[in-house]
Amino acid sequence: MNPDLAETERFFHRKIPLTRAMGIRVEACDGHGLVLTAPLEANHNHLGTAFGGSLAALATLAGYGLLWLELGDRDAHIVVRRSELDYRHPVTGTLRAICHRPPEAELGLFRKTFAKAGKARIRLEVSVEEAGRVCTAFSGTFVAIR
Amino acid sequence: MNPDLAETERFFHRKIPLTRAMGIRVEACDGHGLVLTAPLEANHNHLGTAFGGSLAALATLAGYGLLWLELGDRDAHIVVRRSELDYRHPVTGTLRAICHRPPEAELGLFRKTFAKAGKARIRLEVSVEEAGRVCTAFSGTFVAIR
Repeated sequence: MNPDLAETERFFHRKIPLTRAMGIRVEACDGHGLVLTAPLEANHNHLGTAFGGSLAALATLAGYGLLWLELGDRDAHIVVRRSELDYRHPVTGTLRAICHRPPEAELGLFRKTFAKAGKARIRLEVSVEEAGRVCTAFSGTFVAIR
Repeated sequence: MNPDLAETERFFHRKIPLTRAMGIRVEACDGHGLVLTAPLEANHNHLGTAFGGSLAALATLAGYGLLWLELGDRDAHIVVRRSELDYRHPVTGTLRAICHRPPEAELGLFRKTFAKAGKARIRLEVSVEEAGRVCTAFSGTFVAIR
């Protein structure tokens, strides 16, 4: 595993206990975005499919994670300000959330504003996918504060 | 504790493992709504305040819980279809979510439609409050299917 990803996973597990209880893994991060997974065993509901609360938590964490990796600044306070979730289809196996990397112009502006003003906001899209289709669509506004 | 509340708490803990990991308690249910709590110890983030994912999960569960208690039908499949969360202030102690009981006319229509058509939807408002102010506002659409 990429050492940055292993470090991010350890950071999550050490600092945010729910991520340990959920069994969250940081699977990949590349030009397309950040991928987090969590096993169904720890995250099912009474119907045996993924619990809506677990899907919301995983998607929110994927947004945080992408910004942590992008900013490379562990002292930045990153918080979620607003989010919208659209639950389209049940997830019947491993929960797999992809935070899509925003266009470089948006990320560049976010980094520049953060460096200059010590505060910046950005909108991120996360999808939880299974068998090639989007089961949960998340859209969130995140704020980074130094 | 009201036996219905104790039974609902056991149902959550048995059927949705994340609710056990989060330490969720069903605190009260009356004409105003349903109150769920969760300790900060199991639900904090890297800043020591409540993790956004835990807040989303607790608020979502409060919506489920209110409908379970209202329908009194454990075979009903209740799912969240859409949700919006507005994170206004950090939560620094126990997470406390209140699902506000909708007006009787709305609940009556929901129950009647469910009984007749085997499917009904309703919008629910949940607030996570601390020291008398709303820290997180959740609004969600839930669907019950027989």
